[in-house]
Amino acid sequence: MEATPHVRVNRSGGVARVLMERPDRHNAMDERMARGLADRLKELAADDTVRCLVLRGVGGVFNTGADLSTFEGDGSDAERLDAIATPLHEAVSTLVHAPKPVVTGVNGVVAGGGLGLALAGDVVLAAEDARFEYAYPKIGLSGDGGATWLLPRLVGRRTAQELVFLDRAIDADKAVQMGLATETVPVDDFDERLETLTSTLGSGPTKAYAVAKDLLGLASTNALDEHLDLEKERITGLAHTEDYAAGLQGFLEKEPPNFEGT
Amino acid sequence: MEATPHVRVNRSGGVARVLMERPDRHNAMDERMARGLADRLKELAADDTVRCLVLRGVGGVFNTGADLSTFEGDGSDAERLDAIATPLHEAVSTLVHAPKPVVTGVNGVVAGGGLGLALAGDVVLAAEDARFEYAYPKIGLSGDGGATWLLPRLVGRRTAQELVFLDRAIDADKAVQMGLATETVPVDDFDERLETLTSTLGSGPTKAYAVAKDLLGLASTNALDEHLDLEKERITGLAHTEDYAAGLQGFLEKEPPNFEGT
Amino acid sequence: MEATPHVRVNRSGGVARVLMERPDRHNAMDERMARGLADRLKELAADDTVRCLVLRGVGGVFNTGADLSTFEGDGSDAERLDAIATPLHEAVSTLVHAPKPVVTGVNGVVAGGGLGLALAGDVVLAAEDARFEYAYPKIGLSGDGGATWLLPRLVGRRTAQELVFLDRAIDADKAVQMGLATETVPVDDFDERLETLTSTLGSGPTKAYAVAKDLLGLASTNALDEHLDLEKERITGLAHTEDYAAGLQGFLEKEPPNFEGT
Repeated sequence: MEATPHVRVNRSGGVARVLMERPDRHNAMDERMARGLADRLKELAADDTVRCLVLRGVGGVFNTGADLSTFEGDGSDAERLDAIATPLHEAVSTLVHAPKPVVTGVNGVVAGGGLGLALAGDVVLAAEDARFEYAYPKIGLSGDGGATWLLPRLVGRRTAQELVFLDRAIDADKAVQMGLATETVPVDDFDERLETLTSTLGSGPTKAYAVAKDLLGLASTNALDEHLDLEKERITGLAHTEDYAAGLQGFLEKEPPNFEGT
Repeated sequence: MEATPHVRVNRSGGVARVLMERPDRHNAMDERMARGLADRLKELAADDTVRCLVLRGVGGVFNTGADLSTFEGDGSDAERLDAIATPLHEAVSTLVHAPKPVVTGVNGVVAGGGLGLALAGDVVLAAEDARFEYAYPKIGLSGDGGATWLLPRLVGRRTAQELVFLDRAIDADKAVQMGLATETVPVDDFDERLETLTSTLGSGPTKAYAVAKDLLGLASTNALDEHLDLEKERITGLAHTEDYAAGLQGFLEKEPPNFEGT
Repeated sequence: MEATPHVRVNRSGGVARVLMERPDRHNAMDERMARGLADRLKELAADDTVRCLVLRGVGGVFNTGADLSTFEGDGSDAERLDAIATPLHEAVSTLVHAPKPVVTGVNGVVAGGGLGLALAGDVVLAAEDARFEYAYPKIGLSGDGGATWLLPRLVGRRTAQELVFLDRAIDADKAVQMGLATETVPVDDFDERLETLTSTLGSGPTKAYAVAKDLLGLASTNALDEHLDLEKERITGLAHTEDYAAGLQGFLEKEPPNFEGT
């Protein structure tokens, strides 16, 4: 895995952590950072030894979207927007489709293109200082990073509209209440809770998680009866895994199972 | 209607109650029970004299999913999973598509394949001791019974992910708050409230309910404009029913209408 | 713009207000009123000088649906229902697809076909006396006005079912909590808050709002990856607008931008 500016990877056990690290720009993305993010996430998503993928920022902030300081404010920015949105969208798609649990750890500000990255997690842990902002209309833009696809599915049509049209900054408690984030923790407990969560998920039944994740995603455009067929096909396929064998034995013997992700 | 092991049917007025009854196994399903459930539900869904269909368990519990005690924990269980999922999915599809209101009465534990049955109701009454568990990943499995299709529609993508990945047991109050259940009642009032609800729905405008139910279901994959056309086609069709005649007269005369389901 | 019975238009700045005005019938719609509503909304939606479209009732009530007083209660009403649903559905489709923010101001009762009109807003301001009722099954009917499409997207499947099957009247606070309305204000502040909201939206980045609105709508039937492509195509297109130039400049200079909607 090659070195990438502003993107650091850190692995232990089955957990791979991707850290966004451009603290002098509040982790705003330039093209190289977004490209590095997409490439690292794709490698880790495809790596079967990674059983839980974590995305977070360093320096007390998650990601504040595209770095606008080099933008010109005219039509030439179409190219700059495209150059960031292209890898950003690869990154978001990778998080949503990765065949393993993805945890995003959100602290400080998350705005613009960073919002899609944060919301793409299967589990979103928000530190109490997290602050979610849609932000695009402030600069006369619409939205990218999957935010317009994720928001209605997470918080419903009305709240999605509220975030887009009324320029709300959502704090961590409100984010959990409305469905942006899964849970919130005090800032001082953020790192520890993130480790606990991800090591639990990283020692879970990875293949079963991957199937359930895929099914939850496909549900949104499937009709019920075709989806039922798919659920049946996929659950019967898991009977051949070692994690199922371990899980059933643990259940029948009332012992916690030892899942190997196989 | 033939006798079925572990599935009892009880009718009065326009209400048909299907009772899951395998108390020594906490109403867990073997293949015969799931088959009986599917067959009875299909008969009652197709019977025009049934104007409200109720599903509940006996013995203080709803349904705890597949009975795993005869499972082997190896690839041969693919067949056992298929043998239960096939009738279970017929049952869930029947509840969701039945042209009449379906009420599920949930008390005690509901887990695994029982969860889809519980959530498939148009109205879900939860006793205060109800406890909803996704449970599949515990045994290295993904989910069936329509749970991965119903959950995102009921509680949104984030909460659905939380139930799948974080192994939460949801109590009745939380279930109502998040949208799994419609309302909760004290355990001692559960039977009475279930009767009141179902006799009200069973003496309602059955054809109008059936159309509205169908439209709510179709909405999830329809674009707005085609759905508007469908709403118009279906509402004008109801002008020819006796229940519309009764309903309009009641409205204009400020008298409660007497609906016959015709 | 021609005069229309029971529909008044009032414009100032970039804001156009459509007022439903049939106070002796609690703003219930006959065919001419529904037709006028559809025609005026279509003209204003297509008018680029209108940057925010507002729909409200006069006389302390929003809209109580079809005026049933001339209905016969037999099959001949199929034609009457069709004659109102046709323009009503044009009106709802126009509100949902208008390339600009739409605000509905809801006070007093909103029921039946009025419900779809109220819920079709991008922002729904509810006075504290607002009361949302599905109401159709009371008269043996199913639903129209887009209500069966909007409700599951706004409040989720379970609450949508509750409104349809359990004949609930929802007050303003509950409406905000469940996602029918965006916010609620005391009755005495309703007019002023509606003006503030709409003048803010009417001086916003109209083209960016239009794109974001369109994307939120398309998200509901798009798969993620095609939607990401669309987000990118649409956001880069906005780089050529004057509002983007103003927005970026304002952001970089920490000054509020002056958006002209161009």
